[in-house]
Amino acid sequence: MTKSNPGRCFEDFTLAETIVHATPRTLSEADTALNIALTGSRYALFSADTFAQSCGLGSAPIDPLLVFHIVFGKSVPDISLNAVANLGYAEGRFLAPVYPGDTLAASSEVIGLKETSNGKTGIVTVRTVGENQLGEPVLSYVRWVMVNKRTESAPAGAGSTPSLKSAVAAADLLLPGDLDFSNYDWTLGGSRHAFEDYERGEKIDHVDGVTVEEAEHQLATRLYQNTAKVHFDALAQTSSRFGKRLIYGGVAISLARALAFNGLGNAALMLAINAGRHVNPLFAGDTLYAASEVLDAADLGAAGALRLRLVAAKNKPCADFPYKNEAGEYDPAIVLDFDYWAAIPKRR
Amino acid sequence: MTKSNPGRCFEDFTLAETIVHATPRTLSEADTALNIALTGSRYALFSADTFAQSCGLGSAPIDPLLVFHIVFGKSVPDISLNAVANLGYAEGRFLAPVYPGDTLAASSEVIGLKETSNGKTGIVTVRTVGENQLGEPVLSYVRWVMVNKRTESAPAGAGSTPSLKSAVAAADLLLPGDLDFSNYDWTLGGSRHAFEDYERGEKIDHVDGVTVEEAEHQLATRLYQNTAKVHFDALAQTSSRFGKRLIYGGVAISLARALAFNGLGNAALMLAINAGRHVNPLFAGDTLYAASEVLDAADLGAAGALRLRLVAAKNKPCADFPYKNEAGEYDPAIVLDFDYWAAIPKRR
Amino acid sequence: MTKSNPGRCFEDFTLAETIVHATPRTLSEADTALNIALTGSRYALFSADTFAQSCGLGSAPIDPLLVFHIVFGKSVPDISLNAVANLGYAEGRFLAPVYPGDTLAASSEVIGLKETSNGKTGIVTVRTVGENQLGEPVLSYVRWVMVNKRTESAPAGAGSTPSLKSAVAAADLLLPGDLDFSNYDWTLGGSRHAFEDYERGEKIDHVDGVTVEEAEHQLATRLYQNTAKVHFDALAQTSSRFGKRLIYGGVAISLARALAFNGLGNAALMLAINAGRHVNPLFAGDTLYAASEVLDAADLGAAGALRLRLVAAKNKPCADFPYKNEAGEYDPAIVLDFDYWAAIPKRR
Repeated sequence: MTKSNPGRCFEDFTLAETIVHATPRTLSEADTALNIALTGSRYALFSADTFAQSCGLGSAPIDPLLVFHIVFGKSVPDISLNAVANLGYAEGRFLAPVYPGDTLAASSEVIGLKETSNGKTGIVTVRTVGENQLGEPVLSYVRWVMVNKRTESAPAGAGSTPSLKSAVAAADLLLPGDLDFSNYDWTLGGSRHAFEDYERGEKIDHVDGVTVEEAEHQLATRLYQNTAKVHFDALAQTSSRFGKRLIYGGVAISLARALAFNGLGNAALMLAINAGRHVNPLFAGDTLYAASEVLDAADLGAAGALRLRLVAAKNKPCADFPYKNEAGEYDPAIVLDFDYWAAIPKRR
Repeated sequence: MTKSNPGRCFEDFTLAETIVHATPRTLSEADTALNIALTGSRYALFSADTFAQSCGLGSAPIDPLLVFHIVFGKSVPDISLNAVANLGYAEGRFLAPVYPGDTLAASSEVIGLKETSNGKTGIVTVRTVGENQLGEPVLSYVRWVMVNKRTESAPAGAGSTPSLKSAVAAADLLLPGDLDFSNYDWTLGGSRHAFEDYERGEKIDHVDGVTVEEAEHQLATRLYQNTAKVHFDALAQTSSRFGKRLIYGGVAISLARALAFNGLGNAALMLAINAGRHVNPLFAGDTLYAASEVLDAADLGAAGALRLRLVAAKNKPCADFPYKNEAGEYDPAIVLDFDYWAAIPKRR
Repeated sequence: MTKSNPGRCFEDFTLAETIVHATPRTLSEADTALNIALTGSRYALFSADTFAQSCGLGSAPIDPLLVFHIVFGKSVPDISLNAVANLGYAEGRFLAPVYPGDTLAASSEVIGLKETSNGKTGIVTVRTVGENQLGEPVLSYVRWVMVNKRTESAPAGAGSTPSLKSAVAAADLLLPGDLDFSNYDWTLGGSRHAFEDYERGEKIDHVDGVTVEEAEHQLATRLYQNTAKVHFDALAQTSSRFGKRLIYGGVAISLARALAFNGLGNAALMLAINAGRHVNPLFAGDTLYAASEVLDAADLGAAGALRLRLVAAKNKPCADFPYKNEAGEYDPAIVLDFDYWAAIPKRR
C-alpha cells in the first residue's frame, strides 16, 4: 500500500472525531519579516517591538492573520486536500497573542457532515484550534469545505449541519491582558483616527492596488505549509476548471488587510473572524483592491473594537465600493467578502 | 471625509516643518537573510557574525543600504506618494551601525520648496533622519522629488532651493567606533585588494548580470514598507507613461552593489551617499550590469575610504564602461549613477 | 589588471591544493523560514523547536540540505564559475547538526584533475568541507565539474581521477549524539510509517507537483550565495545552449525532498549523499514531481537509516515511476537522480 497521503474523501470523516495535524511550527521574527515582504503590511503593532511595548506588550506579536494561515495550513492535508471548494469561515476567535519563539500546533474536530444533493460531494465542517507550546489555545475557528466522495451514491439522509453564530458577540472578544493603549502614539501608528471617529455604515476606500505574482502567492502559501495542490501544480491545473493555479484565499485576505492600513491604520489587532467567503478565484496577474465598511462598534474598556466588512475586488478599484447588486448578487470583480472584529485605541 | 491617505500634494508641504513618519520597524537576522536572497550580497561583514567580530564589531550589522531603504520607505507615504519623479539624493551619512534587534524610526524636515516653471509641479527637498530605539541617529540624507500640485497655477516666485554639498567631505565620514581591521581576513573577505590597491580614475567591471523579476522587486520594496503605487499596481500603470510597473530605484542600487562585490569585496561598509540619480527606469525582465570608478580615496586612520561611482546599465554588459557621451548625455542603457563612500581595510 | 574575479579555468587548479572560500555565513531562524517558503518543506524536525526537543535536540536544526546548499554556494566562485557542467556528487556526509546562530565557512581540496579528450575542457574533482564557528566539520562531500580550459590543447597525459565510493557505508553514518527517538510523535511527524515499514525495492510516489518560477529559484540560489551566472543572467543565456536561465540543481533536490515528505514524513534527517546527478536541466515554468525507491536499510541503534533513490521528473507525474529504459537511458522527463541516506525512527 502506498505510504503517501492521498487526502481524505468525504467517507473518511467521522462526526465528532478530533484530528491532530502534523508539523508543528516555531515562529520567529523571520515570519514577521516575510509577512511584511509578502503582504506589504505596515501596522506598527506587528512591525516594531518598541511600539508594541508602548502598547503594554512584551514585543511585537505575530500578525493574527499570519497565525490564522499557519494554523489553517496545518489542517489542509487532513481536511481539504481533496476539497472542491473552501466554502466559508465562522466563529473565529483569537484567544492569545503569539510571539516569536512560540510553537504552533493544530487540531480539528469534525462538527458537521452532510452529503450534497448531487451525490458526488459532501460538506465537512470542522472546528480547528491552534495551540502554543504551553497547550494554550491561541485561535479557534470553524470552516466548511466541499469534499469529493470516494464513491458516488445517493445522499444518506439528513446528515449534520452545525448551528453557527452569524458573528462573534462583542462580549466574546478577548483583548490581550496586558494591552494598554493609554500612551498610544497616533503618529507612529500611521493614522490620527481613533475608535470614536468611525461610524456604523461608514465606508473606506483603501485606494491602493497590488498585482500578485505566481512566485509571491506560492512563497506565502508554502510559508504557511499549506500544500493544497491547486496553488502549486500548474500542469495539473491545465485540466481544471480555471486552467491555471488558484491563489490561496488567505493570500487575498492578507493582501486586502495590508491595503486596509490606508484608512484603518490603528485597527491592527484582529480579534475575531465572523465570516469569510471567497467569492471568486484570484489568479496571478490580477490586481487586488479593497474597501471596508464599518458594521458595528463595541467599547471593550481597554480598547474599542470595530466590526468591519473587508471587500476585495480584482482588477477594479474600489472608489465606488463595488459589492452586491439589488438582487444580492456579487459584483463579478469581488473576490473576498470578509467580516471581522479588530481592536482600535480609543481617543481617551 | 475619507480616512485613507491620498498623499500630499506640493501645496501641503511647509518649509522647515518636520514630518514624523509612521510604522517604526524592528530589524532582525531575517532582514539580513532576505537582503541576501533578494540581492545576492556576499559582503562577509554583513553575512557572518564571526567575520564582523574579527573586525571589532559585536555581530554582523545590517547592510547600510538596507537601513537606507527601510528609512526611505517610511518617508514615502508622507513625501513621495504623489511624486512624479524621484530626482536625487545628497549628503547621505551613515552615523551608527544598525544591528538585529534595533528598531528604526524616521522623520523628515522640509528644507526646500520650489514650483517648476510649468505650474503643474514643484520640487520638494527633505532631509530625512533615521533613528534607532535609543533616539540615536543612524542615517541622515537629503532627497528631492517632483510632486504634483493640487491646483495648476503660475509658480509663486522664487521658492527655496537648499544649497547642498556635491559630496560628503572625507572629514565628515564616521567609522563605527569599535571597527578594527587589524586582523582582517582577506580570504574570507573574498578579495585580496586593499585600500592601497585602488587608484583614482580606476574602473572596475563587475562582470556579472542579474535579471529582475516582478516578484523580486515587489518583495524587496514591501520589505522596506515602501508602498509607492508605481511599483505594485500593474493595472493603474497601464495608463502611465511606461505602461507597466516601475522598479523602486533602491532595488537597482542594492542589486548593483551586490554585483560590485566582484571587484570591491572588501569595500563592504558604506559610509556616505554623495549623490544618486535614477537615470532611466528599470523594469522586470531587464538584466542589470554594473561597473565602478574610483573617484577619490581618503585615509581615515582605522580604515581607508574609497569614493566610488557605481554605474548600472540595463541589458548591456559594462565591460566597456558605458556612461556618458561627449555631450554629457547618458548612454541610454544607464539606469543608475550613484556616488558614495565606502570603508575598506588598509594593507597595514 | 582587473580586480574582479573571472573564475578559474582548468589550468588554474593544482592537485592537492586547498582553496578557502569567501563569505562565511551565520544562519538563523530566517533561513529555516525561507527554506520552508521556498521549498514547502514540512518535516517536523526542522519546523518546530518543541518537536526537535522531543527528539533529544536542543532546538530545530537547519535542514541538512540547506546546509549543503550554503556550503556548495561558497565554493562556486572558486570552483565552478566557468563550469560547463556540474557532473556529480559522492561521499557526502553530514557530520554534525547545524543550528540557528552557527556560522558556516567552507574550503575545498582539489583531489582530481583530468583533461577531457576534446582538449577543450577538464574534469576538476574537489572535496569540500563545511565547518561551523568552532572549526568543527559539519559536512564533507566530493563533487566534480567540467571546467573550460583557457587554451585548447591536447590532453596532457593521464591526469588524476580519484577513486570514490559508490555509496557511504552504513557504518560511516553519523547520528547527532543527542538524538533520541524513543518518544517520537508519529502524528506530529506526519506519517505513521517507521523504519520497519519500509522494504528494499519499495517505491513511493510523492504525488504532488510544484511549478517553479524564475523569482523562486533566483531567491533560493541567492540565499545560498551561489552566484553562478547561468542562474541569473537571462540576457547572457539567450546565447547559451538552452537560451534561458538554468535552475540551480540544488533547487530541484530541495523541492523533490519537500515533495518526498508525502510518503517519507519521518525520514527528515539526511545523513549522507551517496551520489547525485542532474540528468536534465530544469527551467522556470516546469512542474516538478518526485518518487523514491528504497535501496537499502540499516539499523544504527538510536535510529534506522534508509538509503533512498530520489528521482524527480519535470512535467510528468511519477505515479508510474519513470526512470530508465532497458538500455539504461533516462526517461527524458527525469531531471534528478539522487541517492542518499536518511535517519528514520524505529517503531521501538
